[in-house]
Amino acid sequence: MKPTTLKDIAKTLGISVTTVSKALKDYADVSPKTKAQVKELAEKLNYVPNSFAVGLRKKQSKTIGVIIPTMVHYFFSSILDAILKEAESKNYMVIILQSNEDYELEKKQVDLLLNKGVDGILISLSNNTKDFKHLQKIIDYNVPLILFDKIAKLIQCSKVYIDDRQAAYNAVSYLIKKGHKRISHFRGNLNPQNSIDRFLGYKKALEDHGIPFDPKLVYICDNNSDFSDGYLNAKKLIEDHGENVDAIFTVNDLLAIGAINYFNEQGIKIPDEIALFGFSNWFMASVITPTLSSIDQNAYKMGETSAVLLFDEIDCKLKNIPITHKKVVIDTELVIRNSC
Amino acid sequence: MKPTTLKDIAKTLGISVTTVSKALKDYADVSPKTKAQVKELAEKLNYVPNSFAVGLRKKQSKTIGVIIPTMVHYFFSSILDAILKEAESKNYMVIILQSNEDYELEKKQVDLLLNKGVDGILISLSNNTKDFKHLQKIIDYNVPLILFDKIAKLIQCSKVYIDDRQAAYNAVSYLIKKGHKRISHFRGNLNPQNSIDRFLGYKKALEDHGIPFDPKLVYICDNNSDFSDGYLNAKKLIEDHGENVDAIFTVNDLLAIGAINYFNEQGIKIPDEIALFGFSNWFMASVITPTLSSIDQNAYKMGETSAVLLFDEIDCKLKNIPITHKKVVIDTELVIRNSC
Repeated sequence: MKPTTLKDIAKTLGISVTTVSKALKDYADVSPKTKAQVKELAEKLNYVPNSFAVGLRKKQSKTIGVIIPTMVHYFFSSILDAILKEAESKNYMVIILQSNEDYELEKKQVDLLLNKGVDGILISLSNNTKDFKHLQKIIDYNVPLILFDKIAKLIQCSKVYIDDRQAAYNAVSYLIKKGHKRISHFRGNLNPQNSIDRFLGYKKALEDHGIPFDPKLVYICDNNSDFSDGYLNAKKLIEDHGENVDAIFTVNDLLAIGAINYFNEQGIKIPDEIALFGFSNWFMASVITPTLSSIDQNAYKMGETSAVLLFDEIDCKLKNIPITHKKVVIDTELVIRNSC
Repeated sequence: MKPTTLKDIAKTLGISVTTVSKALKDYADVSPKTKAQVKELAEKLNYVPNSFAVGLRKKQSKTIGVIIPTMVHYFFSSILDAILKEAESKNYMVIILQSNEDYELEKKQVDLLLNKGVDGILISLSNNTKDFKHLQKIIDYNVPLILFDKIAKLIQCSKVYIDDRQAAYNAVSYLIKKGHKRISHFRGNLNPQNSIDRFLGYKKALEDHGIPFDPKLVYICDNNSDFSDGYLNAKKLIEDHGENVDAIFTVNDLLAIGAINYFNEQGIKIPDEIALFGFSNWFMASVITPTLSSIDQNAYKMGETSAVLLFDEIDCKLKNIPITHKKVVIDTELVIRNSC
């Protein structure tokens, strides 16, 4: 069975293709009777308008693009969930691309999306993106762009992110108030802004509470597997400091979970001998033993806010209303569980 | 800055739009010199061809659609990861839609994708899909369709899935060989085929090993939260059977993890007092205490195989080669850990 065309409908009803097209679009110069006949037949024959043609005519593709660093990740899945639901409610489709933390790929994907004529783009930058010409290109093409989570401060567009420094500060302050004084930090690699900001929040919390910063308590976890990085650095931490460490604040939950596995194996008691605080509040944090305290980043809210902003900007553009870029900071929350 | 058009290039070089267009497409009747000039300028001006127009001309959108029941799910993220990577390698874009286990939404999404003119569609059906007219519509429109994981047996298209019955049979047989005789099954709700098949595999394993099937050991877990379903049914299981049960085979990992949480809380020793076997091998299974034995479904392989099949069929269609539908059964693997 071939797809039904306007021509098929016109032929069957003995009217012109133009009339059929006008009837489907509810033009005033077609009689209600003809409109009803056309619509009924279109329904019966499963007529589907060609949306590429519609896209060309309206200069709208009703499609947006999203680039994320990685797909298999609880935080990004939750963000995508929100974006898809928001797009669904606006009858938009979503093209999803993953950059695999590869700057060259991210750049290529921006071109693909521009090429595709998407109505707007959402990006969370790869950890290796240091040059932002590809983002400027999106802006130059007058395509609405929202950066979320991993953003570029200097690019002129709307941004949705959390205050990583403050969140880390809150978590470490909590550990200090619980009586911990020798607090280690398992940080991410040196480049991404959120890794830097979480480290700075950790440092500032120590400083504000009169605890000297000891660089020997900071471990850089820059391998590909956070879980085994957490496990191995926990081992190293105990070898290096023995009982002279009483808590760890990790840059993400998976590092903490790796460390918990090591401590459980060694019979090192959590939180009595060592307390742990993670970051991101993955679902996993609530089901391991002991359950892990963490910082909830409100991923769903971040995805939803980003999508709402994008659709607002697309709408402004269609109506020729000037766009005002916004910076939205999503609230984070300390989730206290048994690990501290 | 407005996007560069063919006209801009033509005007700057003092040649016709047709010549520019032909030069970019490497037509033989344009001189190499002109071609070089046009291409250089197009590159300099960041010229991006309008792919909706290209799509119309070539009757190809270089876009495929994927419908999955849910986004925040380790199994589906892994499948999407593979599909995105395969699409990337073929220069295809991927529109992703989630049905939220809602049949009406799934039906609408099929229409949206057909409307969009995608070159092919991949679907894992929602648990509530009992009518398959929307799938037949895709076939009638001559758009290549691959069903994966949750499939409809009667629809004439290629399918990629696992042998749920055999996998469940293997897991339960393993428990029996370890000496367990009173094996409970936490099953999913009654409708989806994989839930039925896993139950049948469980029953068959008991039968083949001479262990009487006791319907009182089967618990239906049909709430929305598998984790608390697992927790609550573990509680109920102990209330109902006390020490007269020595193992549980659960239809998914999250149910087992909920149960493990209950047993850990109550000081019921795993695997000594009760052993557990999950299904799906989520990442979580490897990091909880005790680690959970599970069935690896090879999600990445399923995603990759589905995408490869789809691109093959798209290719056949373009070349007018008849398409032979395939059924591919992805191998599963028992992953034995500390829970049994």
